[in-house]
Amino acid sequence: MTKPTLNLHLVLVWLMAVLASLSQTACAATPSSSKKATLMTEKQVFTTTNFKTYGGKTIPEVNVGWESYGELNAAKDNVILITHYFSGNSHAAGRYSADDAEPGYWDAIIGPGKAIDTNKYFVISVDSLVNLSAYDPNVVTTGPASINPETGKPYGLTFPVVTIRDFVNVQKLVLESLGISKLHAVVGPSMGSMQAQDWAATYPEWVPRMVAVIPAAQADAWTAAALEQWAIPIRLDKNWNKGDYTREAPPKDGLVAALMSITLQALHPDFFNQTGQALGYTPQEQTPLNDIHTTHSIVNWLRGRAEERADLMDANHLLYLVRANQLFVTGYAGSLEAGLKNVKAKTLYLPAKTDLLLMPYMAEKPYSILKSQGKNTQIDYLEGALGHLEGVADISQKADLLRAFLNDEPQ
Amino acid sequence: MTKPTLNLHLVLVWLMAVLASLSQTACAATPSSSKKATLMTEKQVFTTTNFKTYGGKTIPEVNVGWESYGELNAAKDNVILITHYFSGNSHAAGRYSADDAEPGYWDAIIGPGKAIDTNKYFVISVDSLVNLSAYDPNVVTTGPASINPETGKPYGLTFPVVTIRDFVNVQKLVLESLGISKLHAVVGPSMGSMQAQDWAATYPEWVPRMVAVIPAAQADAWTAAALEQWAIPIRLDKNWNKGDYTREAPPKDGLVAALMSITLQALHPDFFNQTGQALGYTPQEQTPLNDIHTTHSIVNWLRGRAEERADLMDANHLLYLVRANQLFVTGYAGSLEAGLKNVKAKTLYLPAKTDLLLMPYMAEKPYSILKSQGKNTQIDYLEGALGHLEGVADISQKADLLRAFLNDEPQ
Repeated sequence: MTKPTLNLHLVLVWLMAVLASLSQTACAATPSSSKKATLMTEKQVFTTTNFKTYGGKTIPEVNVGWESYGELNAAKDNVILITHYFSGNSHAAGRYSADDAEPGYWDAIIGPGKAIDTNKYFVISVDSLVNLSAYDPNVVTTGPASINPETGKPYGLTFPVVTIRDFVNVQKLVLESLGISKLHAVVGPSMGSMQAQDWAATYPEWVPRMVAVIPAAQADAWTAAALEQWAIPIRLDKNWNKGDYTREAPPKDGLVAALMSITLQALHPDFFNQTGQALGYTPQEQTPLNDIHTTHSIVNWLRGRAEERADLMDANHLLYLVRANQLFVTGYAGSLEAGLKNVKAKTLYLPAKTDLLLMPYMAEKPYSILKSQGKNTQIDYLEGALGHLEGVADISQKADLLRAFLNDEPQ
Repeated sequence: MTKPTLNLHLVLVWLMAVLASLSQTACAATPSSSKKATLMTEKQVFTTTNFKTYGGKTIPEVNVGWESYGELNAAKDNVILITHYFSGNSHAAGRYSADDAEPGYWDAIIGPGKAIDTNKYFVISVDSLVNLSAYDPNVVTTGPASINPETGKPYGLTFPVVTIRDFVNVQKLVLESLGISKLHAVVGPSMGSMQAQDWAATYPEWVPRMVAVIPAAQADAWTAAALEQWAIPIRLDKNWNKGDYTREAPPKDGLVAALMSITLQALHPDFFNQTGQALGYTPQEQTPLNDIHTTHSIVNWLRGRAEERADLMDANHLLYLVRANQLFVTGYAGSLEAGLKNVKAKTLYLPAKTDLLLMPYMAEKPYSILKSQGKNTQIDYLEGALGHLEGVADISQKADLLRAFLNDEPQ
């Protein structure tokens, strides 16, 4: 068990910032960081028609948002693709306006002179299909909440199951629309690591460098079952109605329950118990002792954070994201070994030591397989008490390593 | 990460046996173990009236079941109390009939000549208040599913919140009804460890020896929030109706979801992934790829096990058990340090190295505090890939240590 090494206040500020950025809500109380060298960005939209899914279905029209940072060079060979995590979107870095309180989630490592240097690289990211934040004005996605052109109503559960491969294929179409035919690197955390690895396995000629942060190379039985715990409360919500609900009466309680579970699993007791202490939590609270209808302060806090985030998210989209993750194996080649066999990239795995959602063994497995296949691969560990969230909120601890890896410098 | 050291088939048989014993259903397909020295037992019933709860409420009538193994001696000083885990009951050892397929959950260490030797000790266990298996014919308990004598209907959520201290106080009344005024030891796993520690802190003159297996000395913020994840799906079930439901239309889907979550958290990926492999699980299953309404084989398996167990369990009882656990701190003295200060017993802590539900730090904390208070305390670690379940299904690995500790032999 790693001891907490981070200042509590700092960590709380971080967590609030991360939660705020997850929901894309501006938090006026949070002081914005220094404006010098502020990276600005805006959401673009890509559209394609008759998109064929990995499962063999057709989506008549796909719209997804994307963002970029830095300039595409004339040779179009300076492209770094960032693939986002489960509850994230393409807002990886920068701000939408000068008074935007929070930048994108990996702003600490993406920008002019930063580890992923926008003075050198054209950095691009794409909103996933079935993106969780379907109602966020800064997210463009296509999924069960989208209008089915054939019926004029939301698809609901008639939307086809989509996979991580489909996210990758949409990204490839976006890149090709810009005349790009090769990446400098693909880098992503968590669900983003799945996309990054699938890129390297499926389009090896495109990918000379791949970085998988807090990664999973496949959904093992444990992960598939754990992910299902996020889907179950949504299906139990009486408003869910087998996926057929309105924007006015969504299954919010089920979605909030899922988000509570996600937040808890993405953290580690070391950090969470510090949060409890800061809130004044004690097991001997009088209110929950006197009334079964109430809950402890720490539960109220966790629910409150989830309720704030839920209004911009769609419950069916969460179900489809869970399924996409459950179906994942790098390369979709029947086994992880077979999928990784196609990888040509040099690869870097960055699990977090305290991660309880995707434990370090999830990174050690593909690393070992790639090593045994004679590939150029390395592994290094994120430290700290945040658990899975280390890979998002605390990524700057690996800035030097990332920079060197991307620039092919000796490490 | 501990490598799996157990034969897969053996572990699967164990798990099935444990799951069967949890639900108290006989499993004809499971071969019963050797009949030599078969320990027999039967459920007894204890009744008390006007029971005052720790929270200051009165329960007009309390009925609880209890079992014993071995003989109470004339001095009544050979008593070992076994306190049960969350989904368990007082059936700690032995069989109800010669053709009973499964013995009590700790039969591996309780019996003639075993670590907790019924040739020497009178071993006794009591069904908890708000016991999960409210409809199990072999469980007697009082809780929200019991009939309120004032209304002639089930209490539902009008039943007062009860605590681990209340479980302890009911056990004390059972013991006193037998003329017992001192224990030789108290021993319990998981929620049973809470009761064992509270016994040692609250009635120190009764308790010269205490063993806490896969323990928690208090519900820290992490544990309180994690436990809430078991309660949430029940409250979401449309049949729950704020706790006012009938035996004919219970909130079974919510209860099944809670049990799935409990089973998953009580295990470890090392074991769970072996189970998945044995079931033929693969992320690339066709059914969940083609149909969002279906789920992967491993999810179906987990749900199936939960559905088998749910029929004998009560959803409101689960909510009350969650609350009792959330409110727990050893000694209820304002802080863990203050509670442990009253302990006079020599103590033994047995966490499981791979435990993800109550991680080893939960045992290391009270152990350190007791040590710093100059008390006679020791800690040792259960090994193996089962996670939390090591403390129930695989306890025999610590048989020699337990025997020596209880007999005051040099270790």
